[in-house]
Amino acid sequence: MESSCENARKYSNNVSLQELRDSLAGFAEYRGWDQYHSPRNLLLALVGEVGGLSEIFQWKGEVAKGLPNWSSDEKEHLEEELSDVLIYLIRLADVCGLDLGQAALAKIVKNAKKYPVAANQTT
Amino acid sequence: MESSCENARKYSNNVSLQELRDSLAGFAEYRGWDQYHSPRNLLLALVGEVGGLSEIFQWKGEVAKGLPNWSSDEKEHLEEELSDVLIYLIRLADVCGLDLGQAALAKIVKNAKKYPVAANQTT
Amino acid sequence: MESSCENARKYSNNVSLQELRDSLAGFAEYRGWDQYHSPRNLLLALVGEVGGLSEIFQWKGEVAKGLPNWSSDEKEHLEEELSDVLIYLIRLADVCGLDLGQAALAKIVKNAKKYPVAANQTT
Amino acid sequence: MESSCENARKYSNNVSLQELRDSLAGFAEYRGWDQYHSPRNLLLALVGEVGGLSEIFQWKGEVAKGLPNWSSDEKEHLEEELSDVLIYLIRLADVCGLDLGQAALAKIVKNAKKYPVAANQTT
Repeated sequence: MESSCENARKYSNNVSLQELRDSLAGFAEYRGWDQYHSPRNLLLALVGEVGGLSEIFQWKGEVAKGLPNWSSDEKEHLEEELSDVLIYLIRLADVCGLDLGQAALAKIVKNAKKYPVAANQTT
Repeated sequence: MESSCENARKYSNNVSLQELRDSLAGFAEYRGWDQYHSPRNLLLALVGEVGGLSEIFQWKGEVAKGLPNWSSDEKEHLEEELSDVLIYLIRLADVCGLDLGQAALAKIVKNAKKYPVAANQTT
Repeated sequence: MESSCENARKYSNNVSLQELRDSLAGFAEYRGWDQYHSPRNLLLALVGEVGGLSEIFQWKGEVAKGLPNWSSDEKEHLEEELSDVLIYLIRLADVCGLDLGQAALAKIVKNAKKYPVAANQTT
Repeated sequence: MESSCENARKYSNNVSLQELRDSLAGFAEYRGWDQYHSPRNLLLALVGEVGGLSEIFQWKGEVAKGLPNWSSDEKEHLEEELSDVLIYLIRLADVCGLDLGQAALAKIVKNAKKYPVAANQTT
């Protein structure tokens, strides 16, 4: 029982691609937006959001990890643009009938074979 | 106990953003790639993958939901490109020190307030 | 003389990449913007404008050539977004020390060799 | 007559958007590609090329103006990617029935009004 509770707590901090997908599918359906969510419409919307993401970084020169000198407003803006890209990516995969989470796991496995860790890198 | 087991099974089919983030962080670390994973490097890599995603759709004209006439090879290629975009998006959020999953949930809540469901749409 | 005048009139309707490049270089210099116009800053600004361009087309489904049902405001907006992409592309090539016009001519020649016109297509 | 000849020489070094547009329109027509050159197909092809352009810069960190440490092969590759973006941008404007050169000139005039040069910047 303890471990189950642990598990439940652990997962409550997690956000799965499936729950986002279901949430976004319902969001579109309730608003009558399914008619607009064709694959290429969603792809162009994704490109639009990648543009918004790029604008945040465009005049900054090199940016350090962790964004040490960014204001909380700037970080919040960045979180929103990252989220918008994710949202359209999940919707695009969904209307194409593809499982984005499983695809990502499979791609990581494929990449691991393509780029093996050198023996001297593991020690 | 039953519900806990149910829960475990449900989550085993799920892929969380946190586990992908951890997996990708380890992947980069083991290969000594952290030095290359600055925010703007990852952003440009993301833009590169969005280009690869667009190439799949570029000469097709309008594409129907579910991709009815696509071969399994084409679908697999699309899954890989979608995954590549997701992978760089998760890495970008991570090196910026941001929680992409929580950010996405917050953005969906914000969008729900911005675009309320009309009364006649719920019936 | 006649042909020279003809020529002058013809070219007055033309806009060359070189004059746009010079105009934009002066524009940046007079405003003290050169310090911000590094290659990667300009590239990300270009990506941002491609996002703005995509937003115009994102919810429209397939669009017919000539934009038959677009308002003059929509067309003007599109002209501005296309121009913004061109402006940053020209600036990017310029700060990289590359001649975009000559490069484009060379690329068209290369493409012509790569994709020869079939004999039955020329008749 | 002298000035006309001067003019002719000057323009022979120039590449105009109109001549690129005409050349690309003929290129597509001779190959029977007009049927594929719808606005959104060309837009997605443009996004694909912007991806290729970004890949050149993605792992480089900040890049200095003039690309001092780049090989001639790298510069040639960059010229090709810049050209591909320009080519699809010109085609997109053309099939939309818009004059990209005039639009760019108008946008520069508009930008000059939006961002006036400060008095102390002109001296």
